[in-house]
Amino acid sequence: MRFDDTVITISREYGSGGRIIGKKLAEKLGIDFYDHELITMAAEQTGMSEEFLKNTEERANHSIRFSLSYLGNLSYTMPLNDKVFIAQSQIIRSLADKGPCVVVGRCADYILKEHKHCINVFIHADIDYRLYRAIKHYNFPEQKTTEKTKELIYKIDKQRETYYNYYTDQSWGRADNYHICLDSSQLHIDGTVDVLKKYVEEFELKQDCANE
Amino acid sequence: MRFDDTVITISREYGSGGRIIGKKLAEKLGIDFYDHELITMAAEQTGMSEEFLKNTEERANHSIRFSLSYLGNLSYTMPLNDKVFIAQSQIIRSLADKGPCVVVGRCADYILKEHKHCINVFIHADIDYRLYRAIKHYNFPEQKTTEKTKELIYKIDKQRETYYNYYTDQSWGRADNYHICLDSSQLHIDGTVDVLKKYVEEFELKQDCANE
Repeated sequence: MRFDDTVITISREYGSGGRIIGKKLAEKLGIDFYDHELITMAAEQTGMSEEFLKNTEERANHSIRFSLSYLGNLSYTMPLNDKVFIAQSQIIRSLADKGPCVVVGRCADYILKEHKHCINVFIHADIDYRLYRAIKHYNFPEQKTTEKTKELIYKIDKQRETYYNYYTDQSWGRADNYHICLDSSQLHIDGTVDVLKKYVEEFELKQDCANE
Repeated sequence: MRFDDTVITISREYGSGGRIIGKKLAEKLGIDFYDHELITMAAEQTGMSEEFLKNTEERANHSIRFSLSYLGNLSYTMPLNDKVFIAQSQIIRSLADKGPCVVVGRCADYILKEHKHCINVFIHADIDYRLYRAIKHYNFPEQKTTEKTKELIYKIDKQRETYYNYYTDQSWGRADNYHICLDSSQLHIDGTVDVLKKYVEEFELKQDCANE
């Protein structure tokens, strides 16, 4: 089985476990995993601070989009979010050319549209499962009520959707953007990872047959 | 491994191979498969002809919806398409209660929303793959041009979308309606079936653990 050029992108609803699913999948396949690492790389490339990048990435709201850009080596007329998007796109393409990996978020599915050995994944889950995971794993403030936490989950989804729809000509969460979409609330994290691993194996097998 | 109560529903884009994928999956799992069989059953239940049912099912256009109903034992005030939908819903629920099976189309995912051991699948594919399959397998008239065939594919998708959105409160083709969505143009028919089989096995394993 070869994993020499397969790139797996993971888009995900907030709280669905998409990040940890991607991490575990990368571990099982023995390939690189990129999530927060992309922020560090983008910081190096643009000269912007990691803190700033963390706050702006996967958001495309007007207050940031239309602010004056003043950092980095890129044009002064380009909005900051667009600079971040372009820098991250260059990094993602370069990582995908280097070797097999899993990349989380940042419209990587769209950025790597022309990559021949790319599997685009979308992870979603029902709201109760996401609520349970958000409270258990993401250190939500204890005083927040269930309704407040749900509101926050939907708000983060909305940010991701706005960001994705703004930078692509596609609609976030529509099945036909991705090769495989999974509801992690049915098989939970490990079961979902195992199905994805099977998908990658079938994909690799198909590449092998095509090359024979 | 138990397959004593798992029901798998398959929604699909036209030409994606969803029907044959469902059929092969049912064969591999050794469980029943229902597609056109549902028409025969609905004909028996409503007294309408199979020919008529074939022409009206998975369509929710106005000319049919607002025609006067005149057949069967149901109320005279109910549009024909609604009668067909209700009859098929009753049949699908009754089949799901009887034992494990694969059901294709007809909003079965929505109809069986309360079924505890249901896996909802959506199969889609890129247009070139669907075009290839439509010409090869569905006996499209030879004189039709590629553009005409594409138009027909999109038209049938639109009918399915309208029917689904009309009878459910969901949006056809959105990932979060389904437990697993697959692009059959990447792994083709047999690879897609194998990934689905793996999904069912993981699902069954999870049920077994929950019952222990």
